[in-house]
Amino acid sequence: MDEKNTNRLEAFSDGVFAVAITLLVLNIKIPGMDSASKPLDEDLWRRLLEEWPSLVAYVTSFATIGIMWLNHHRLFTHIKRTDTGLLLLNLLLLLFIVLVPVPTALLAEYVVRPNEHAAAIIYSGTFFVMACCFNLLWRYASYHNRLLGKDADTRAVAAISRQYLFGPLFYLITFGLAFINVPSSIVLNFLFALFFAVPGRPPRQLSSSNASTDLSQD
Amino acid sequence: MDEKNTNRLEAFSDGVFAVAITLLVLNIKIPGMDSASKPLDEDLWRRLLEEWPSLVAYVTSFATIGIMWLNHHRLFTHIKRTDTGLLLLNLLLLLFIVLVPVPTALLAEYVVRPNEHAAAIIYSGTFFVMACCFNLLWRYASYHNRLLGKDADTRAVAAISRQYLFGPLFYLITFGLAFINVPSSIVLNFLFALFFAVPGRPPRQLSSSNASTDLSQD
Amino acid sequence: MDEKNTNRLEAFSDGVFAVAITLLVLNIKIPGMDSASKPLDEDLWRRLLEEWPSLVAYVTSFATIGIMWLNHHRLFTHIKRTDTGLLLLNLLLLLFIVLVPVPTALLAEYVVRPNEHAAAIIYSGTFFVMACCFNLLWRYASYHNRLLGKDADTRAVAAISRQYLFGPLFYLITFGLAFINVPSSIVLNFLFALFFAVPGRPPRQLSSSNASTDLSQD
Amino acid sequence: MDEKNTNRLEAFSDGVFAVAITLLVLNIKIPGMDSASKPLDEDLWRRLLEEWPSLVAYVTSFATIGIMWLNHHRLFTHIKRTDTGLLLLNLLLLLFIVLVPVPTALLAEYVVRPNEHAAAIIYSGTFFVMACCFNLLWRYASYHNRLLGKDADTRAVAAISRQYLFGPLFYLITFGLAFINVPSSIVLNFLFALFFAVPGRPPRQLSSSNASTDLSQD
Repeated sequence: MDEKNTNRLEAFSDGVFAVAITLLVLNIKIPGMDSASKPLDEDLWRRLLEEWPSLVAYVTSFATIGIMWLNHHRLFTHIKRTDTGLLLLNLLLLLFIVLVPVPTALLAEYVVRPNEHAAAIIYSGTFFVMACCFNLLWRYASYHNRLLGKDADTRAVAAISRQYLFGPLFYLITFGLAFINVPSSIVLNFLFALFFAVPGRPPRQLSSSNASTDLSQD
Repeated sequence: MDEKNTNRLEAFSDGVFAVAITLLVLNIKIPGMDSASKPLDEDLWRRLLEEWPSLVAYVTSFATIGIMWLNHHRLFTHIKRTDTGLLLLNLLLLLFIVLVPVPTALLAEYVVRPNEHAAAIIYSGTFFVMACCFNLLWRYASYHNRLLGKDADTRAVAAISRQYLFGPLFYLITFGLAFINVPSSIVLNFLFALFFAVPGRPPRQLSSSNASTDLSQD
Repeated sequence: MDEKNTNRLEAFSDGVFAVAITLLVLNIKIPGMDSASKPLDEDLWRRLLEEWPSLVAYVTSFATIGIMWLNHHRLFTHIKRTDTGLLLLNLLLLLFIVLVPVPTALLAEYVVRPNEHAAAIIYSGTFFVMACCFNLLWRYASYHNRLLGKDADTRAVAAISRQYLFGPLFYLITFGLAFINVPSSIVLNFLFALFFAVPGRPPRQLSSSNASTDLSQD
Repeated sequence: MDEKNTNRLEAFSDGVFAVAITLLVLNIKIPGMDSASKPLDEDLWRRLLEEWPSLVAYVTSFATIGIMWLNHHRLFTHIKRTDTGLLLLNLLLLLFIVLVPVPTALLAEYVVRPNEHAAAIIYSGTFFVMACCFNLLWRYASYHNRLLGKDADTRAVAAISRQYLFGPLFYLITFGLAFINVPSSIVLNFLFALFFAVPGRPPRQLSSSNASTDLSQD
């Protein structure tokens, strides 16, 4: 029964991640769709190039949601059981995942005007809250191995706990930076996403010579 | 074969829940997307704050659909087999789940004018009908343990049956309240959702000292 | 490997059915969303009532796609293996399932003008083509029990084959009727969907006294 | 644990494929939806016929995404384990799958003006990049049988590797052709999709007399 519970939580979450990541494409506007007169080739190229903020926002948000899914997937290779608390924390996380298209659309609109900070602040703020939700979910499940499998790899669990500590910290930096310098905040957001794409290393005192082989297959 | 049937009903329902919950985000309008001149920072903040009814509606509806999914999930830890009747009742339930974005959008539009009751009446009415569908589905499946597993926990089954009796009653109250006082109807809607997030307690005569431990892991 | 193949075909199809059935809600327009001045209560009720063609189209199409999913599900309790031909025929079927929101939107626009036949013709035509696709899929899989399980219930298989013969015939009738009388064509469409919701009876020579109990749980 | 990993990667990918393929329908515009005065029958037929570029683009893109799903499915009957690299390459592939509605919409707008090459160039270019991503994913997984099952059919693996070599080559041709002749580029795109619908034959030196039976069931 426990096994089944995790399966369905994962299936529902996969569905939400899949729809949220796909809806990002709706933010990319196609030139000449709204106007009656369609632009000619040269004009179309120019207008497509002007769409670059939409494309940058699409790629950044796709990478971020994709890597959030990857982390969700990674956590649930360790979490084997669910209870009401976990289901509710998971819903809280998904509430913000589903919101991502909104700050993404805002960012795509305002990235061309680096003096306007609101969009970047909201964008980074959303990711800060998501990082907190991920931590809540993981701390709740891993507290005294509450919902982890009996065969949970303690080193891998410790590695995740350590890596996740950096999440809120990192996104607090990009959040702060959004008030000062918009472009660097966006670039840093993207780099932090890559940091969470790679599984964390285990804390030093626990790692042994053959630890790396186990971790390479997350 | 039975096992497989339930799996696919759950997979399809998970998909519908996931898409419906994600489409809620489309109701959040982004300031300055439609107009050619994008607002400046101060103006944008102000206009984002004016979007609060959309956000309140989004959070309320997300919580409600999420908790409906949670209940669906909980029912199907007990329901082990399907037949045509169950598949059709499940479709009926999903018909109203999918509709949720419509009353949500209405509510987001009209919540700022508490003298206009139509939106809140339709919103509460939808949830009343959904509570009835949930009851139908569960009564149909649990009648003489028709579609439950042989190892069904009779106490947990009785607890769900008892808790679900309150559903239509509760939402009838919010429905009635919508005619009198819109804000209190919305707040009550949200509180009732939380009531159904927590699994029901078993009826007194059946509960024993060690019952709570079993129920804590739904 | 075979088992896994069917699983993934079903998972992908479930996803497509789930998204297609959920997108139907986007056809329901909400009064006062586009205009700056929101209508007052009485006006809103009147305008919501004017939305009845959208709601009728939504319910009809939801029922039809839902029952198509139910049939897909029913076929795949018998189909146990896949090959490239089946995957392609399944894609062909999904191509028309995904199209359903388009004739639905057309119907919702034109149902108020029963002298205009184009929308009803296209609506019925789409379902005629879908019925043909379902037949193709099933004949391909059941031909000499090609892709059915070894333990396939021959009576149930024969019952499906017989029931499905009526599909194209039925929808040819509603298609023809759409040229003559639009409302009766739509009502008949809905009634035929209900016919396919119930599993078919086995052909007489194969049925025995205890056959009905097996079939009641499809 | 490995088995579970592949399952969830497949479930998430299925969801993304399912949503992306379903969103294609949003590109089909319904005549008379935006204007207050709905066209009469004859007028509606004419305007529906004028929608043929949308329908051609819909069918082509549906076929292409469908066949991409079929190939993804085929690869993962051989790939049995995942690691971070595979998850990231899979996300890269999905990033372009999700983008498909954009070049499809562009193509639908511009296919009626064969002297305008930009849309066809972007359309073919997208598929060229996707073919490259498929190759990357497969080479990464099949390199020294890294992530394949121990019982991987070496002939089938070699057949896929050989067939996939043609992918980038083929789409480079349609890409080049888009600069010269738009319609032939689109037709060729469609034909190449069909080529990848059929599983590849094993290289000659490996094939034996009874090879065809194994391959017929992919």
